[in-house]
Amino acid sequence: MRINQALKTMNQRINLGITSDMHVHLRDGSMCDLVTPTVRDGGVSVAYIMPNLQPPITTLDRVVQYKQKLQRLAPKTTFLMSFYLSPQLTPELIHEAASKNAIRGVKCYPAGVTTNSSGGVDPNDFSNFYPIFQAMEKEGLVLNLHGEKPSVSRGEEDIHVLNAEESFLPALRRLHHDFPNLKIILEHCTTRAAINTVNELNANVKNPADVKVAATITAHHLYLTIDDWAGNPINFCKPVAKLPSDRRTLVEAATSGKPWFFFGSDSAPHPIGNKAKHIGVCAGVYTQSLAIAYVAQIFEQHGAIDKLPEFVSQNAWNFYQLSKDQLQSQDEVVLYKDSQVVPDTITDGDKIQVAPFHAGQKLNWKIEWQCK
Amino acid sequence: MRINQALKTMNQRINLGITSDMHVHLRDGSMCDLVTPTVRDGGVSVAYIMPNLQPPITTLDRVVQYKQKLQRLAPKTTFLMSFYLSPQLTPELIHEAASKNAIRGVKCYPAGVTTNSSGGVDPNDFSNFYPIFQAMEKEGLVLNLHGEKPSVSRGEEDIHVLNAEESFLPALRRLHHDFPNLKIILEHCTTRAAINTVNELNANVKNPADVKVAATITAHHLYLTIDDWAGNPINFCKPVAKLPSDRRTLVEAATSGKPWFFFGSDSAPHPIGNKAKHIGVCAGVYTQSLAIAYVAQIFEQHGAIDKLPEFVSQNAWNFYQLSKDQLQSQDEVVLYKDSQVVPDTITDGDKIQVAPFHAGQKLNWKIEWQCK
Repeated sequence: MRINQALKTMNQRINLGITSDMHVHLRDGSMCDLVTPTVRDGGVSVAYIMPNLQPPITTLDRVVQYKQKLQRLAPKTTFLMSFYLSPQLTPELIHEAASKNAIRGVKCYPAGVTTNSSGGVDPNDFSNFYPIFQAMEKEGLVLNLHGEKPSVSRGEEDIHVLNAEESFLPALRRLHHDFPNLKIILEHCTTRAAINTVNELNANVKNPADVKVAATITAHHLYLTIDDWAGNPINFCKPVAKLPSDRRTLVEAATSGKPWFFFGSDSAPHPIGNKAKHIGVCAGVYTQSLAIAYVAQIFEQHGAIDKLPEFVSQNAWNFYQLSKDQLQSQDEVVLYKDSQVVPDTITDGDKIQVAPFHAGQKLNWKIEWQCK
Repeated sequence: MRINQALKTMNQRINLGITSDMHVHLRDGSMCDLVTPTVRDGGVSVAYIMPNLQPPITTLDRVVQYKQKLQRLAPKTTFLMSFYLSPQLTPELIHEAASKNAIRGVKCYPAGVTTNSSGGVDPNDFSNFYPIFQAMEKEGLVLNLHGEKPSVSRGEEDIHVLNAEESFLPALRRLHHDFPNLKIILEHCTTRAAINTVNELNANVKNPADVKVAATITAHHLYLTIDDWAGNPINFCKPVAKLPSDRRTLVEAATSGKPWFFFGSDSAPHPIGNKAKHIGVCAGVYTQSLAIAYVAQIFEQHGAIDKLPEFVSQNAWNFYQLSKDQLQSQDEVVLYKDSQVVPDTITDGDKIQVAPFHAGQKLNWKIEWQCK
């Protein structure tokens, strides 16, 4: 099948439509200046932006200012914004932000599980936030879950980086049960258990508009397993890449065309010095500047290049109920076969250097923009 | 129990006897000059030395020269030497080396699993080495196994850093079955599965002299789990530290007093620059210069300080059938309660810097030598 697919895709040009990456970290300061334009370089038109700046984004003013800043840096990219779930949010603020189209969702970080998550919530008890979720449900906002429980070692209740996601799944089920009309995304899912759960929660879904629980999948988790980050901090991220069986299940899900799976790169840039450390390495893999090419390569390897438009465009479009009038640009992305080598670093030529995923390795695809 | 133990051990001085560390990497060149004297600093009298230099030690000349060099650097330390299992070894060489007391055992590295193991063997098929094992069995030499299978991802046979040791256990059983009188050590074991297997293989052992299959346990694996090396290359080693349940089982085994478990630090120094990298981090944790203090701390935490002499002295003494006339010194080690902080680096003041395990953290014990 692979050989046939290779022949079929040779010289092929594939219009992916208006592409989206529904989990993007653009940071602040010089890093933001460097990476924000790379959203478009990587072949992404619509980007859902994470609010875990320092301090986290929890006010209308800040989310508006941040969006303006991003828009100045990348005028043709559509930025969908989010709040950081915290006690500072109120139902009134949610309603106000929604009425002004300032946000499309709220991101929930369990405390302490990843970069800038120390202000996060206790995933064992979301009840304090139920009034927020009610307001979100009413407004059609999306709840974006970093679905991990914090590590703890106490006998039968051990939680560690390998089972942290699976341990979170009952909380996902409970949230969906308590808010059946709230749109929820299990972000950057990494395990067979998570994929199975999301499939199960969608067992009765008849058409894409009915999907309430979705999952994003990153580019790098389609490639990596635990062996790839053992000894290679560049591949260390949270949730950590798991076992080969998990990776295979992620690839199956991403290439399935199912409307509840779509692309969220979780591209998370760190200065290279924060990766090349013997202690305290920052979690995160940077894939933004070649986002679509990384994904296309895996889809091609699995004979599923024809499923790519669903994964990087249509499914998120439907779930987030996007419309063309919300876009900064209606440009579309065309994928074509041409090899390129991932550069060693992405740099502003001054202070910031970021090592991209799979630096030095060959990719088989490039993208170009079809301007409208 | 912990409080009682703490009271009991306060102001306590414990004579550990002639201590041993049966898995030690002393390297070559400047690193060797730096770390060899730290065997004694760490409270170890007898050290079993790994042969994975570059190139590996496979000749009588080299093992003799290496031992002489180590002896010059640390005249009071007893070095037990080993060959690196490879096709270059012959039964004749084994007999000759044994007759000259040049080696006490042979180390087997599966190809590609850890530092300088590229010349290793295929753990799926040891049959080529059966003549070597026969010669070793006859000479009473010890087979030291790095018990991991190399990673491979192919569906039902996935092997990865987490199950690499467990996947090796059938090979251990087979070797013991085929060579019931060969002394075998599963080195630096890290899993509940390994501990259970070694216990099982000793089910009928009536006294220490009958033990044929033993296991060494490092200091760092008594502390670490997967969460500790995720993002902290300083704690990355092979085999990797596993789950909290595995760690608890290792502590139980080490503190059990059972004669088939004893200390092998696998202290594996790397220049700090080879740890602080974003790709290609070297595997290995350096514990040598505080070896006994690290272990004592864990034993104390678990109310088992009275079991420490078995773990760091008697069990290895019996298994390796050591005798006082083989020693460079009959000095004994006395452990006493006094706090110290692990230094940030061990350095020769020139080019080499090594970051020790738990740098900056407090240890509750010190050692002193009781000279004979």
